[in-house]
Amino acid sequence: MTAQPLAGITVLDFGQIYNGPYCGYLLAMAGARVIKVESPMGEGLRGRAETSSATYPFAMLNANKEGITLNLKSADGCDLLRELATKVDVLVENFSPGTMARHGVGSHALRKINPRLVYAAGTGFGASGPHRDYLAMDITVQAMTGIMAITGDGDGPPLKAGPALCDFLGGVHLYGAITTALYARERTGVGATIDVAMQDATFPTLATAIGAMYFLGAHPARTGNRHFALSLAPYNVYRTSDGHVAIICIREGHWRNLTDAMGRPELKDDPKFGDMASRARFMAETDAVIETWTSQLTKAEVFAACQAHDVICAPVQNLNEVLEDGHMHARGALRHVDDSALGATVLPSTPLRFEGVEPPAAVERPALGEHNAKVYAELLGMDGARVAALRAEGAI
Amino acid sequence: MTAQPLAGITVLDFGQIYNGPYCGYLLAMAGARVIKVESPMGEGLRGRAETSSATYPFAMLNANKEGITLNLKSADGCDLLRELATKVDVLVENFSPGTMARHGVGSHALRKINPRLVYAAGTGFGASGPHRDYLAMDITVQAMTGIMAITGDGDGPPLKAGPALCDFLGGVHLYGAITTALYARERTGVGATIDVAMQDATFPTLATAIGAMYFLGAHPARTGNRHFALSLAPYNVYRTSDGHVAIICIREGHWRNLTDAMGRPELKDDPKFGDMASRARFMAETDAVIETWTSQLTKAEVFAACQAHDVICAPVQNLNEVLEDGHMHARGALRHVDDSALGATVLPSTPLRFEGVEPPAAVERPALGEHNAKVYAELLGMDGARVAALRAEGAI
Repeated sequence: MTAQPLAGITVLDFGQIYNGPYCGYLLAMAGARVIKVESPMGEGLRGRAETSSATYPFAMLNANKEGITLNLKSADGCDLLRELATKVDVLVENFSPGTMARHGVGSHALRKINPRLVYAAGTGFGASGPHRDYLAMDITVQAMTGIMAITGDGDGPPLKAGPALCDFLGGVHLYGAITTALYARERTGVGATIDVAMQDATFPTLATAIGAMYFLGAHPARTGNRHFALSLAPYNVYRTSDGHVAIICIREGHWRNLTDAMGRPELKDDPKFGDMASRARFMAETDAVIETWTSQLTKAEVFAACQAHDVICAPVQNLNEVLEDGHMHARGALRHVDDSALGATVLPSTPLRFEGVEPPAAVERPALGEHNAKVYAELLGMDGARVAALRAEGAI
Repeated sequence: MTAQPLAGITVLDFGQIYNGPYCGYLLAMAGARVIKVESPMGEGLRGRAETSSATYPFAMLNANKEGITLNLKSADGCDLLRELATKVDVLVENFSPGTMARHGVGSHALRKINPRLVYAAGTGFGASGPHRDYLAMDITVQAMTGIMAITGDGDGPPLKAGPALCDFLGGVHLYGAITTALYARERTGVGATIDVAMQDATFPTLATAIGAMYFLGAHPARTGNRHFALSLAPYNVYRTSDGHVAIICIREGHWRNLTDAMGRPELKDDPKFGDMASRARFMAETDAVIETWTSQLTKAEVFAACQAHDVICAPVQNLNEVLEDGHMHARGALRHVDDSALGATVLPSTPLRFEGVEPPAAVERPALGEHNAKVYAELLGMDGARVAALRAEGAI
């Protein structure tokens, strides 16, 4: 591969907050022309981005996009969308189900105008089924889909996983469905209507926990940092002099290696720690032996010793450390940028890497309607006066 | 769309454990012919599946695949792979970086034989960079990538998120990269070498937490179920008579609606709760007001009241409830199956839904080498005697 894989593809990205915009971001970083389409008010995250913690996510998710405005509540705005739909390959949206159809510009209406269109809707709970209209945010999908039930300690309440995993899992599945449909369109000439629910996209991540439930014959307790079935030891997060490390042993050889890493080779002959079943039975003692060692060292020292002995281990990095992770910067997964709102900051590149093709250079997110003149001229042949008139009447 | 979008595509799936196999599962469920390729010992998860909590994940991730054996440690096995590589479209693997190349069957060797091949490698930390050879499991990527730093309570240690999110985020990004490359191949005739790291695929999910760090000017404390920036209230998980519910208000209207849902309309006029900033300042009192209400009701009752008043709320469902979620079953996202090892169980369908095309019916995972005779005959024209000879000499 020597050119951006999605070069030549044009996308209307009606995405808002995280789910749709992440999908649009991946499309842009694979070389598609992605046009972010917002109401004249701006999408929800843009408004919050001006004064809150949303600045960083908005910058991350809308890089490398052009920006136009279009008012779906205006008849002229909907007419514009019908015209645009004949000029583009993909439309992405993550409104509440049925929003676009209520304005007369749902997938069926637009695909009647352009049968090659790939119309992709990302939602919390999908386009069908009794919960379809439930209000969905990452935290409610985490609650509904079992993530909270399996996160936290046994003596505490169900706990939210820190990352916005449901939003992003939904967004990247939506991306995969779109590229699948683009492939199929090359063979058949026909577009597609795509339905990806955050709930469906999240369910598979429960695999280990559901497996433990079948194995145990009962709902697993929340086990903090331990394995759900409490059948593996060591498997935990351990205190160091400057933070924490995660260490797990999934084969007997790992444990033998760990005893060497700890400078405690004699533990190999201690029947209490003789095999996985026994270490799991004496889990507290196993963990105590390890923490006695780790707590005297820094996380870097523990990590180095484990690496030298082929033990599965990782330092628990805080966000500052992640943003300056030398490995991620070395391979271009993170980039230092000078952002107009954030100043010196670090933004990711795309996780999708194709040998022989560098991801596009970082381009800052568009201002609201920044590319109205350019895009409406290039796609619909409008002159500046027409664009100004549409703006004056509230259509864009 | 009326046919499976990836019909006609053939995949060699060397995936093991979760990451590669989930990618292969998505390919199979989009209509590709996916051939799971294992060593004569079977891949790691298969071995554990016979006696442990791995049975369920193995069943989930390897449904709708054929299964063959091929020994990469045998010269004849590698010759077989070189022949197979000329007959297929995609090869997926998630071995340690460089494993395939060490056997002489890395992406460059195979793409020299078949320039149309899409060779996709999923790893923990990527194909380049100083950490490339670090041992990667979901838990170590969670540690390295900041997930643990932002999960848990402020007074507790960093905590693992319950779901295997890094593995699955890696797997679905790998899927998206493959379908992108298949699209590009239709235009250019040339395949691709793909590099997707779990770490890169996980980073974007930190968006909210990193945003809070920039906003606060300091690393956010772990905040349990509350918002990282502690700037939104209500935003928490609340006790009910039979479990918990999540409730969040992101706009003033949500709070006003919630006071009606609670039958406490007079709270609208209480200055303590007058706006988001004030509720955030009096967060403990805001949460107490809500929990006083929720703790007298079941989670279904709280949920119903919130739905009736357009308040963002969800019951915290445990795994049993998720597996019998009426909505997911109604829309075909979950299916009751009678599994040869698990008995009556529930397995997901694909999250990628295309209007007009039903996902393939569920086909149980293959036994080790179950389709050796069929696949080696169909792809390489071998007769039974040749397959038996290869097995006898340990090549398959």
